[in-house]
Amino acid sequence: MDKVSVTGLGMTEFGKHEDISLKTLLLDACFEALKEAGFPKVDAVYVGNFMSGQLGNQEILGAIVANDLGLGSIPTVKVEGACASGGIAFRQGFLAIQSGEYENVLVAGVEKMKHRSTEETTLAINAAMDNDSNEKHAGLTFPGFFGTLANRYFYETGASKEHLAMVALKNREYAMNNPKAQFKKTTSIEEIMSARMITDPLGLFDCSPTTDGAAAVVLSKGKSGVMIRASAQASGTTQMQEAEDLISIPSIRESAKLAYKIAGFGPEDIDVVELHDCFTMTEMIAIEELGFFDKGTGWEAIEQGLTKHGGKIPVNTSGGLLSKGHPIGATGLAQIYQIVSQLRGISCNQVDDAKIGLAQNLGGTGAYSTVHIFERVNA
Amino acid sequence: MDKVSVTGLGMTEFGKHEDISLKTLLLDACFEALKEAGFPKVDAVYVGNFMSGQLGNQEILGAIVANDLGLGSIPTVKVEGACASGGIAFRQGFLAIQSGEYENVLVAGVEKMKHRSTEETTLAINAAMDNDSNEKHAGLTFPGFFGTLANRYFYETGASKEHLAMVALKNREYAMNNPKAQFKKTTSIEEIMSARMITDPLGLFDCSPTTDGAAAVVLSKGKSGVMIRASAQASGTTQMQEAEDLISIPSIRESAKLAYKIAGFGPEDIDVVELHDCFTMTEMIAIEELGFFDKGTGWEAIEQGLTKHGGKIPVNTSGGLLSKGHPIGATGLAQIYQIVSQLRGISCNQVDDAKIGLAQNLGGTGAYSTVHIFERVNA
Repeated sequence: MDKVSVTGLGMTEFGKHEDISLKTLLLDACFEALKEAGFPKVDAVYVGNFMSGQLGNQEILGAIVANDLGLGSIPTVKVEGACASGGIAFRQGFLAIQSGEYENVLVAGVEKMKHRSTEETTLAINAAMDNDSNEKHAGLTFPGFFGTLANRYFYETGASKEHLAMVALKNREYAMNNPKAQFKKTTSIEEIMSARMITDPLGLFDCSPTTDGAAAVVLSKGKSGVMIRASAQASGTTQMQEAEDLISIPSIRESAKLAYKIAGFGPEDIDVVELHDCFTMTEMIAIEELGFFDKGTGWEAIEQGLTKHGGKIPVNTSGGLLSKGHPIGATGLAQIYQIVSQLRGISCNQVDDAKIGLAQNLGGTGAYSTVHIFERVNA
Repeated sequence: MDKVSVTGLGMTEFGKHEDISLKTLLLDACFEALKEAGFPKVDAVYVGNFMSGQLGNQEILGAIVANDLGLGSIPTVKVEGACASGGIAFRQGFLAIQSGEYENVLVAGVEKMKHRSTEETTLAINAAMDNDSNEKHAGLTFPGFFGTLANRYFYETGASKEHLAMVALKNREYAMNNPKAQFKKTTSIEEIMSARMITDPLGLFDCSPTTDGAAAVVLSKGKSGVMIRASAQASGTTQMQEAEDLISIPSIRESAKLAYKIAGFGPEDIDVVELHDCFTMTEMIAIEELGFFDKGTGWEAIEQGLTKHGGKIPVNTSGGLLSKGHPIGATGLAQIYQIVSQLRGISCNQVDDAKIGLAQNLGGTGAYSTVHIFERVNA
């Protein structure tokens, strides 16, 4: 297998970009990544995006990047896999280099959500459920889904809403040092606990926001700087009624297992992780499914501060989806931006001597999960 | 490079499917292809689709296929590239096998369009233009774009509306023998010429219809039955104002050139072709850009019957997008369904002893083109 490395990174600020179009956000992140990589000859473009069609009546993002950045008549693709669109696009770029056809691939992700109403955005996001299922017709939403998981998790373990608040606070404190994050205002357990309820038990701070933003990376054949040690993807059920239980997300577990096997690493070898905290509850389950803590014990690890600097594994040092923001198609790439920055030693909330990092991106109610493991190959 | 073959084909009828959901159409085509391939262990799924989000508020088509067909926790991806979504999905499946990760890949395409109004569908299709461009804001539509090309083509050559009608008639006559085609009713040059005008000079019969439908193929590592000799993709401009001229579609030319180079074939070696006749005018340009006829002479070839059985190269023996129908995301796969059927010797409008076939799929106003060349490896 060819070695593949990340040779360029780009990312817009995450937040509300009222006067900047989706296209401009996308091109800005791509240009920054290409510039950082020294403007290599790009052989293909992959763009991760979930709902530019629904919210912006704009598709053909792949062709737009090639055309507007003057990359020539190279092949381009838009990739969709709900909130995992970015992670899946990254994996497609990786596979395309493995195929032997390409040397350098630009992978970008973008979403623009803040220009539409909450109702419109909520409806669009529900396209990540199965239309033919009962639960969608019964009114299930994503906060509803993860709220149900939280209540069940509370029932089966000793966890409570306060443990969720600890996740929210940790990620907010990390975001305060990330100049590109959407939320940088200080908060407290008290404020988080008493915030407006969204879906019991998830309050405002337990839910990732809607966000405008883009992120991009350049992938290159060869071994330099930060190398991809493993790329893995797994599917899960598309309906809650088919779940094995309500405190597991099997696609995370399967994709992690596969990635560890490919890399020859275990969770104990990972120095820093970005994982898909679309809700505080999702982070609690993900630290278990990724193998950092036993099933049903994540809440204790959080209480003991094991997911922060100085603990077992610093989680979401970017601020995560919760506080960095969650422009859906961009999220998977923004996670990789953070992990690669950590391994380069130039990140916000830098983890000392981070050598191996992991990025995990989730789509739907567990329908998709990607796990990528990265290693610093020279310092 | 690993050899890759098509080992299974599936396709729904094309037309209006009032009581069948997008998901059911997609699963039906996938199941048929898997059954035909003898239910191999599928390693990944790629789905081509353009606007299930916009018209149906339904995404995650990849995960739905894996979940509902019981394919396990395998990776899945939805691919978008406007009307070339199917061809691009096919290419991604091919590359994924080339990468060495997979042995068998299911590639499907689907679109459901007939449940929405013409206004809604037209707006959704315009997502294949660049939102930030002037021309879209000025009211350009796809019939408008290709109508402009037709008028310019008439101006620069000796062609007239009657030559467009000959394309429409040929494809309708082929469709009459295709049990899966949307339009099987006989017509005449007179009826076509006098039909309702859509955008001057394109009348009703010059435009492909809106269609519901799905198609699927199984790709397998190895050499059996019908092999892929070349997979190529090129990008073009995303705005009319950047076109090199108005009687060329450079992405078709570039993708064909690349495919011929990879295959070691030229246009003279092709026995049968399916190309992207979204409008009659597009077929006239495509037969030139694919190298079958010189630039500006396609209309003469059509007049002389060179694009039919007994001529130089039978074009769109399925009935083409014009009469078979154009369920956007499915179109690229339906073209491949027809070419593979031709090479197997079991097609409607069978071309005697067809050994080498070509499928060309276009997206946007030339933003994307894929060309795949297939060869029969045993008879």
